[in-house]
Amino acid sequence: MSVPALIPFKPRNPKTRLSCILELPEREKFAQMMLCDVVVAAREAGCEPFILGTEPFSFNGLRVVHDPRGLNESINAILEVTPGPLLIIMADIPLVSASAVRRMITTKADLSITPGRGGGTNAIYLSCASRFHVNYYGMSFAKHLHIAEESGLSCEVFDSFLIHTDIDEKEDLVELLIHGKGMSGEYLRELGFVLSADKGRVGVVREKDGQE
Amino acid sequence: MSVPALIPFKPRNPKTRLSCILELPEREKFAQMMLCDVVVAAREAGCEPFILGTEPFSFNGLRVVHDPRGLNESINAILEVTPGPLLIIMADIPLVSASAVRRMITTKADLSITPGRGGGTNAIYLSCASRFHVNYYGMSFAKHLHIAEESGLSCEVFDSFLIHTDIDEKEDLVELLIHGKGMSGEYLRELGFVLSADKGRVGVVREKDGQE
Repeated sequence: MSVPALIPFKPRNPKTRLSCILELPEREKFAQMMLCDVVVAAREAGCEPFILGTEPFSFNGLRVVHDPRGLNESINAILEVTPGPLLIIMADIPLVSASAVRRMITTKADLSITPGRGGGTNAIYLSCASRFHVNYYGMSFAKHLHIAEESGLSCEVFDSFLIHTDIDEKEDLVELLIHGKGMSGEYLRELGFVLSADKGRVGVVREKDGQE
Repeated sequence: MSVPALIPFKPRNPKTRLSCILELPEREKFAQMMLCDVVVAAREAGCEPFILGTEPFSFNGLRVVHDPRGLNESINAILEVTPGPLLIIMADIPLVSASAVRRMITTKADLSITPGRGGGTNAIYLSCASRFHVNYYGMSFAKHLHIAEESGLSCEVFDSFLIHTDIDEKEDLVELLIHGKGMSGEYLRELGFVLSADKGRVGVVREKDGQE
């Protein structure tokens, strides 16, 4: 039986911290391309992805659950009625590979969690979803470890930089340009983004508005 | 037979990009604590760590190879005379766990490589070291993939955020404070570093010079 993969997605005005380098229509398209990359990886890993959207939204024939409430409320409502396994995976981790997802959902623990950069949570696999509840925002990784412990669930901290690397800020695009083999990396390159290696850490620049 | 693990280390004036928040003696001690964490993980994974130092240096009875030449020259000199397996692992990845190292050195490919942040290379495992040569600095990850291809060696890009996370700049300390269970994380906490969560991404601040 394939594991359902819940992907929260915000179609309107996404990724605001990228507004310094991407116009609104570009940000919306970029967010969709990242979502695509996540959907592809989840499918290849044998999951059945569906989208949880704060607004009505249709996307490549995927099942969309529309819930205007906050992220935690809407995810927890789904968890409550899901006795079986569930993967919750963010839409902004376009490096994710099928093999990383496959490793993650074959954990021997009750749940497996991959932290995001800066203490967030990028993916949680639950073998019995209804035994857990989420608490996103802020340092959610520590909160989720705590909830697992309180609930008496064994927990694996999953070690994957492909899932760990979330794309929020300009600097994050570096990793996508280096490692991204999917549609979002391709889209960035089309827009004219290239790596810049001056002194210190590598950065990105946008060349000539993508006139290539 | 245990796999030798080569750890390049610069004892004098290390981690200059941390000078904004750490005094020289603190940087030196911090670098040694990170080295300790790497040595412990490598040993627990069944490797036999030794240090490659640009200067004479002694460290907890570990074998130290002293070579004043550049990093590439000195590593390549060792590779040439090493027909068997070798792990090359950086000293500034203190999150590394024994289980990550163990997974890495049991690859089925001829070599396994873990990229660092920004396109660097944090670890390379070679099943036959003498068939490879390194080219560090800059975007070395891409260069190493290219060398592997040229040499006809199969190559796995190893997916681990614990090995991927290198500590070079102030912002990197965030991950160490969140995930670090070893000596270097402890040392940072002793110095008074704590997480600060204002708006946007989580940062670190140093409280009262460690007067806790």
